Amino acid sequence: MLTGSIRPAEVLRSEWHALRPKERLRRFRQLTTEGSAELFPKLDTRSQMLLLLTLNRGERHVWLQMLPPDDIADLILHSPRDQRAELLSALDDRVRAEVEVLLTYRSDVAGGVMSPRFARLRPEHTVDEAITYLRQQAPNLESVDCAYVLDEQQHLLGAVFLQDLFCSDRTVKVSDIMHGDCAYATEAMDQEKVAQLFSDSKLHTLPVLDAERRVKGVINVDDIIDVAYEEATEDIQKIGGMEALDAPYMEVGLWQMIRKRGGWLAVLFLGEMLTATAMSHYERQIEEAVVLALFIPLVISTGGNSGSQATTLIIRSLALGEIRLKDWWRVAWREVAAGLSLGVFLGLIGFARIVIWQSVSPIYGEYYMLVALTMFASLVGVVLFGSIAGSMLPFILTLCRLDPASASAPFVATLVDVTGLIIYFTVATIILHGTLL
Amino acid sequence: MLTGSIRPAEVLRSEWHALRPKERLRRFRQLTTEGSAELFPKLDTRSQMLLLLTLNRGERHVWLQMLPPDDIADLILHSPRDQRAELLSALDDRVRAEVEVLLTYRSDVAGGVMSPRFARLRPEHTVDEAITYLRQQAPNLESVDCAYVLDEQQHLLGAVFLQDLFCSDRTVKVSDIMHGDCAYATEAMDQEKVAQLFSDSKLHTLPVLDAERRVKGVINVDDIIDVAYEEATEDIQKIGGMEALDAPYMEVGLWQMIRKRGGWLAVLFLGEMLTATAMSHYERQIEEAVVLALFIPLVISTGGNSGSQATTLIIRSLALGEIRLKDWWRVAWREVAAGLSLGVFLGLIGFARIVIWQSVSPIYGEYYMLVALTMFASLVGVVLFGSIAGSMLPFILTLCRLDPASASAPFVATLVDVTGLIIYFTVATIILHGTLL
Repeated sequence: MLTGSIRPAEVLRSEWHALRPKERLRRFRQLTTEGSAELFPKLDTRSQMLLLLTLNRGERHVWLQMLPPDDIADLILHSPRDQRAELLSALDDRVRAEVEVLLTYRSDVAGGVMSPRFARLRPEHTVDEAITYLRQQAPNLESVDCAYVLDEQQHLLGAVFLQDLFCSDRTVKVSDIMHGDCAYATEAMDQEKVAQLFSDSKLHTLPVLDAERRVKGVINVDDIIDVAYEEATEDIQKIGGMEALDAPYMEVGLWQMIRKRGGWLAVLFLGEMLTATAMSHYERQIEEAVVLALFIPLVISTGGNSGSQATTLIIRSLALGEIRLKDWWRVAWREVAAGLSLGVFLGLIGFARIVIWQSVSPIYGEYYMLVALTMFASLVGVVLFGSIAGSMLPFILTLCRLDPASASAPFVATLVDVTGLIIYFTVATIILHGTLL
Repeated sequence: MLTGSIRPAEVLRSEWHALRPKERLRRFRQLTTEGSAELFPKLDTRSQMLLLLTLNRGERHVWLQMLPPDDIADLILHSPRDQRAELLSALDDRVRAEVEVLLTYRSDVAGGVMSPRFARLRPEHTVDEAITYLRQQAPNLESVDCAYVLDEQQHLLGAVFLQDLFCSDRTVKVSDIMHGDCAYATEAMDQEKVAQLFSDSKLHTLPVLDAERRVKGVINVDDIIDVAYEEATEDIQKIGGMEALDAPYMEVGLWQMIRKRGGWLAVLFLGEMLTATAMSHYERQIEEAVVLALFIPLVISTGGNSGSQATTLIIRSLALGEIRLKDWWRVAWREVAAGLSLGVFLGLIGFARIVIWQSVSPIYGEYYMLVALTMFASLVGVVLFGSIAGSMLPFILTLCRLDPASASAPFVATLVDVTGLIIYFTVATIILHGTLL
């Protein structure tokens, strides 16, 4: 019966991420054996690993064997290097062999995410034989909703859904009902691409093939939902201008987080130092027309903001495959149009601001119209430059085989700050020549 | 047989997003009937809608009926208002009734994502009866991998997986093998929460219950992968400082994109104008010590960068449920520690920069040590303030029932720019009093 009350394991899972590590361990130990057996396989890999490390060898064996091999491999990859051999040794021989194969793959490719256990059928089986055969395999498998039809060399011939078997005549052959053209991943396929394959194919399982089209394992869609979240988190953190944390905010050590943020902050700081160098070239202009200095933050940060919008848009579109590298010039044209329009729009606001302010309190002096004009032209220039630089940088990084998400908002802002100063003072020198300068 | 060649429908799908709308239509029309019937259901909703609008009424009927009701409802929601009634009228009565029910839900809640077609069983059925009954239902359903056991009033009693039926004795009753405590969504549950429920439960289907625990429909995991991507895209675009585009970059009209970017840019511009106001208060100081102006962009943008890191981290952690509102003070403490460390780190770089530069070319004058000290103290101040403001703003927005992702990197940078100027000039006034000022 569906009961109204929620079980303690459910409650603990829903609160899990918000608890401190010590509290988690305490609450986990309070669960019944049933409760902890229910909770453990559903926890994230990091939490499983941290729990396991607090247990003795016998307990480790029990808990580890509860997980499917792909989850065990993941857990071992997330554990400290000096613990890995010991964790592996806590496994049964058969499981250890499976896990060791998975550990040869990088953890962010299809081979590293797949499970080596899947339902197999032979093409010459009848539906009746296939059902009997699947029943035998079922206890060792996560799911038999989809079985793969293999030849003797383990090459993929097709896929059969349990539903197909179930709705077909019992004497029909497997080869007659199988789907010969099912979608598949390759061992080295990036997990982000696998996620898109799932999203496109609407399948719940994908086979993973090696170069000879032999089936090495299967990927279940539930493993891939987590991938979608992980990849988005990584991109978001990079866009925010830091290294990806690779763990929940509260669980990363303070020192480790400072290092991951400090690295990029220092790089950006060194880049931003160029603004001081650029400014020192315009020291004379500032001395002659202090009014110019007043608008420096406004002008350069507006350029930074428009660059940050453009880079974020393009990074995400590249990640989703909506834009490809060769589309760069179409993007460039759009951004020129968008940058010009936005620049004129903001430029007019800036122009109006100075003219209106002057009529209230005349702080901008007799040449306020020229100052307002300088403002307008500079804003058009920096917003246009920001949009172009922000949109092209992800392409350039992709071209250099770097992650386009590194073209973070702060990175682009820094780039645009330096250029923005040059644009601003150049415009000012031209417009105010002979009057203020 | 699994063939090496890829079918034209496959090729077209893989290139779809990168093609221009006109090119898509042309290539779609070139497909065989079989090919287009294969491609159409797999396209994204927007593309399906745009294709449909180019077809006549008879064709619309054929193509629309090919989709499950939840996809039809989605498509109608994405179509222009004046076309909706006509699209609905192209449906069979039975399908139209199903779709109309779905259209009463918001599109971002469980009710709006669910399909009303699912496999049903009665608790008193034997496994043998259940199999016969499911076979009858199968042709009308997307999947019978999971069936729901209902009482006469449609209340959920439990779930039965096809795999369970398949591995059980044929005379056992459904009520004896069903899972009574299966996870479920409620009609009004946010789709982001549904996605997490899938990720946690590792199920491929979730039932959707109304307030009386009656089953109204089911959600399949493939519909939810798209949700994970959509929500991440929305958050990323907001973090980049604009309204969410709600469509691929290349497909949004130029004018619409400019409006979505221009709105936030103008808000940020108005906020950033406060920097000019703040600066005008310090005009005297700048006139007396132009050297101060040189470091304005460096100081304020460093504050902005640290704020942007903090806000991005917290927005994502809140979205993933790693942090809850009540954790704000723990976050605040961490950010004070991180902000102080990072501030001292960058402050030392800034200090060193001025001292070393001075020994090469003495442009900072006789009081360069005091200028360097001003730099150090200001950087500690702005980085600390940036980290605190950036991390707390998402909490404040959540508290005001606004989307925390609106605490975008540019928004925080603008906030920190204004405050950064005040910090910088206040520090300078104190340290340089009696010397440069």
